[in-house]
Amino acid sequence: MPILNKDMSVCISLSGRPSNIGTRFHNFLYDELGLNFVYKAFTTDDIEGAIRGVRALGIRGCSVSMPFKESVIPLVDEMEESAAAIASVNTIVNDGGRLSAANTDYEAVAELLKQHEVDPALPVLVRGSGGMAKAVVAAFRGAGFDDLTVVARNADAGRALAEAYGYRWIESDPAPGAALLVNVTPLGMSGPDADALAFSPAHVAASEVVFDVVAFPSETPLVRAGRTAGKRLITGAEVIALQAARQFARYTGVTPTADQVRRASEFSRG
Amino acid sequence: MPILNKDMSVCISLSGRPSNIGTRFHNFLYDELGLNFVYKAFTTDDIEGAIRGVRALGIRGCSVSMPFKESVIPLVDEMEESAAAIASVNTIVNDGGRLSAANTDYEAVAELLKQHEVDPALPVLVRGSGGMAKAVVAAFRGAGFDDLTVVARNADAGRALAEAYGYRWIESDPAPGAALLVNVTPLGMSGPDADALAFSPAHVAASEVVFDVVAFPSETPLVRAGRTAGKRLITGAEVIALQAARQFARYTGVTPTADQVRRASEFSRG
Repeated sequence: MPILNKDMSVCISLSGRPSNIGTRFHNFLYDELGLNFVYKAFTTDDIEGAIRGVRALGIRGCSVSMPFKESVIPLVDEMEESAAAIASVNTIVNDGGRLSAANTDYEAVAELLKQHEVDPALPVLVRGSGGMAKAVVAAFRGAGFDDLTVVARNADAGRALAEAYGYRWIESDPAPGAALLVNVTPLGMSGPDADALAFSPAHVAASEVVFDVVAFPSETPLVRAGRTAGKRLITGAEVIALQAARQFARYTGVTPTADQVRRASEFSRG
Repeated sequence: MPILNKDMSVCISLSGRPSNIGTRFHNFLYDELGLNFVYKAFTTDDIEGAIRGVRALGIRGCSVSMPFKESVIPLVDEMEESAAAIASVNTIVNDGGRLSAANTDYEAVAELLKQHEVDPALPVLVRGSGGMAKAVVAAFRGAGFDDLTVVARNADAGRALAEAYGYRWIESDPAPGAALLVNVTPLGMSGPDADALAFSPAHVAASEVVFDVVAFPSETPLVRAGRTAGKRLITGAEVIALQAARQFARYTGVTPTADQVRRASEFSRG
């Protein structure tokens, strides 16, 4: 039985199609750390009313997913650097009625590039031009990468994304050679594209690092190909766990250990 | 650990000073009955924003306490008979975006008068003139009681309440003789008035039925005096359990058994 009590701080998520991941991740860590918090996923067809409700009910934290990452911008009081840099919000913290917005996807990608000690001199090939691609490309720019190419079939979105951060856009893959391959499309995600390999075997063979943002599953065809070829790997499981951990720290003021994040992440995917 | 999931229906309460009672009562029964619901108490300084949030977040049910029982009236879409009769709301049900309001305090008092087979011919003395007194006096009117006197030191409120339902108001106690004594003041409630006896021993001795709306504790000095004198009793514990059970049935569509309500009520007070 959920033994809730009136004094619990409440965190929620708002997304078009809620998953159970956030609800399980955050509640697992609340329990693990003995915090009097509770977390619940919501959807809405009235984002303005939902944020008004966050204020009126004193909801402490609000994770934001598609399709609300941009529409919440005029509804918050302050944009932190991580959200302002890409005009995209995935985290809102309510400090006594003042809502500040951040983007922990951006922060997580930037942090992973550091943790994996990826050399900013490496040439990068990023496939994708959606909202998450913006967080990824902006994080590469912030980390000092100069040689980056966005590959996207959507010419308008691809060109706009690349140019916004001073990079190149091309419509289809260049010859193999990029040292860092980054997939930010649904290729390899469970569903119709589950068996799709996001970059050719020749591209994988020519790379040093394979970075796949797909988290479900995190063992995508691209990650398996990279592993088989002995490449260094950064997976979507790392991104999603790290971004959630940073949300958690903002909401609660408590930074979970790497081991706690790993176990919460495993639990959340179970 | 509260193992919440994204599909849970959410019910909340809105009050100026939340207690743990509703949160414990409803969550106990969700567990007992295997319902995928969760309940949490909230307060707010923006009742309009809170109800907007109820709509935007698809919150299924919302219990309403002081000081919001009247201010929510213009915010709902429909007033059921129980709420309209006393212009006071303690229950809001959200049916796919349409908010209907009821007053289960009124319903509970009416139901208890039936259950205890109280004769409508008995003369009644009601002490109190606040929001709950309105629900009580209206329920007596609805049950066909003709001889009722409101005793209240607040002349404006007491007279208005009595006249609204075609009854008498007096400022201080008449001579003993009323067959049904009803306390709807904080006299006997834990706190500064815990030791106060709401009616004199002579009044209790002259009565047939003693009805105390105070629920914390439900063993008030008045209830103890009535029990000692061998009078029939109706207690605040009965009122609060029955009104909560009716809220529960509206939110979930499931009517708990009397035994389940009794155990949930005990748990909620623990």
